[in-house]
Amino acid sequence: MSQRSVFFLSDRTGITAETLGHSLLTQFDGIEWKKHHISFLNSTNKAQTVVESINTAAVQEGQRPLVFSTLLDPAILSVVRQADCHFFDFFETYLGALEAILQQPSARVPGRSHGLRQEVSYFRRIAAIQYALNSDDGVNAKALADADVILVGVSRSGKTPVCVYLALQYGVMAANYPFTPEDMCAARLPPPLQSLRNKLFGLTLSAERLHAIREERYPGSRYASLPECQRELEWQNQLYQQFNIPFIDTSGISIEEISASILDHTDLERRLYGAS
Amino acid sequence: MSQRSVFFLSDRTGITAETLGHSLLTQFDGIEWKKHHISFLNSTNKAQTVVESINTAAVQEGQRPLVFSTLLDPAILSVVRQADCHFFDFFETYLGALEAILQQPSARVPGRSHGLRQEVSYFRRIAAIQYALNSDDGVNAKALADADVILVGVSRSGKTPVCVYLALQYGVMAANYPFTPEDMCAARLPPPLQSLRNKLFGLTLSAERLHAIREERYPGSRYASLPECQRELEWQNQLYQQFNIPFIDTSGISIEEISASILDHTDLERRLYGAS
Repeated sequence: MSQRSVFFLSDRTGITAETLGHSLLTQFDGIEWKKHHISFLNSTNKAQTVVESINTAAVQEGQRPLVFSTLLDPAILSVVRQADCHFFDFFETYLGALEAILQQPSARVPGRSHGLRQEVSYFRRIAAIQYALNSDDGVNAKALADADVILVGVSRSGKTPVCVYLALQYGVMAANYPFTPEDMCAARLPPPLQSLRNKLFGLTLSAERLHAIREERYPGSRYASLPECQRELEWQNQLYQQFNIPFIDTSGISIEEISASILDHTDLERRLYGAS
Repeated sequence: MSQRSVFFLSDRTGITAETLGHSLLTQFDGIEWKKHHISFLNSTNKAQTVVESINTAAVQEGQRPLVFSTLLDPAILSVVRQADCHFFDFFETYLGALEAILQQPSARVPGRSHGLRQEVSYFRRIAAIQYALNSDDGVNAKALADADVILVGVSRSGKTPVCVYLALQYGVMAANYPFTPEDMCAARLPPPLQSLRNKLFGLTLSAERLHAIREERYPGSRYASLPECQRELEWQNQLYQQFNIPFIDTSGISIEEISASILDHTDLERRLYGAS
């Protein structure tokens, strides 16, 4: 497998350059990327050092590195553009076209996309994260009533990471309710959820995957055994059907995909903090 | 303020289209964007519905909406390209150039960037999130020893959201240690931290901001009073100096910026799950 350097350059966090850059690179197989993340590139001195790193990589690898940039400062840009590289300017490509369409100049001020712009949304986001942490066990009925959405599912079905992601990325108050052995003795909605049906969203997964995840933590236990996983999932999936609870099979999909699906299935507002 | 529709179209989560799209839009002032997020756009039928929405917005607003797309499916692309809009294709713009440079065709398979590609990294990420949740109080000495980084600071200095973000986005095991009133009686490193000096990273903020944050929660308390905030921060900042603990002033910067700075100051590996 060939190795090749790629540089992500940004005035600030580098999140935008990384997100698009990685998305593009995943479309090319068979190349081992040596990734260099240069955030807070805010002086021509630092830029000169980066140029030297790029040129060194070009010599060592015998080919020009890729450079993905969201730099906005013209002085810094003019330094790094002198490097021996293939330069992709993710902002310049579009800002000119957008200026023409919108008939106004762009501000070209760094740090607007991942900076702290609104105090209110900051407090809301922090509150959502704290909420996800505090209501992780799902036992607090008062907390459940405050939720925007309540994720339900058997133990280790992946509710917690999704709640945390929904809070952090979207400011959604996401609670989580794990079905207990007691719940599974009856074919009814667990009592704390009965008045909150319209907030429920179910997670499910294959018995094999649940078994593998539980085995990681409690190897050889009855709890982790395949028959027990099958039994719990059967009860759970029947509940989803009986009470018409929307659900998603999470086997083989990522936290990002599960979260995007939940937003897609509900009418929750998307406030993408990572990108606004 | 004029209102204008913008559509984010994606085969999968829409994270890449939103991230770059929002970064670009933040560079234009005075426009109120009406945002339409269309994720999992995976059939020509759905595409036809989107075309109708775009055309309706064009008529209602008297101007063509912006469309930011990371769609890869040629059949779906050809449907949506018929809409009355300004179309920005974030992938097509670069994939052709990259194919020429890398001398190989791109895979053009959706869902690679935010999908679940590696089982090992999935478990690592889940473990990091669980770790951040479990070690949120910082009292467990065993857990502190396992940390990649330990964020320290006075109560409400913003350690928890940063720990959760580092875990979720980068798979970093980030612990958090809040300085206690007892700690602040002496000019020494708190005992649980003494053997872990090289893992410490400090957060600080202005006394005014800390006061405002604490007032949100415990209005009128001594804990939230400005003099108390000043006293605690003075003790803390002196500690950072005395023990040469790297630190960052978080006043007015976002969770993303704080996290990127911490990664920048330490040699922690960046594994951007949101984008790889």
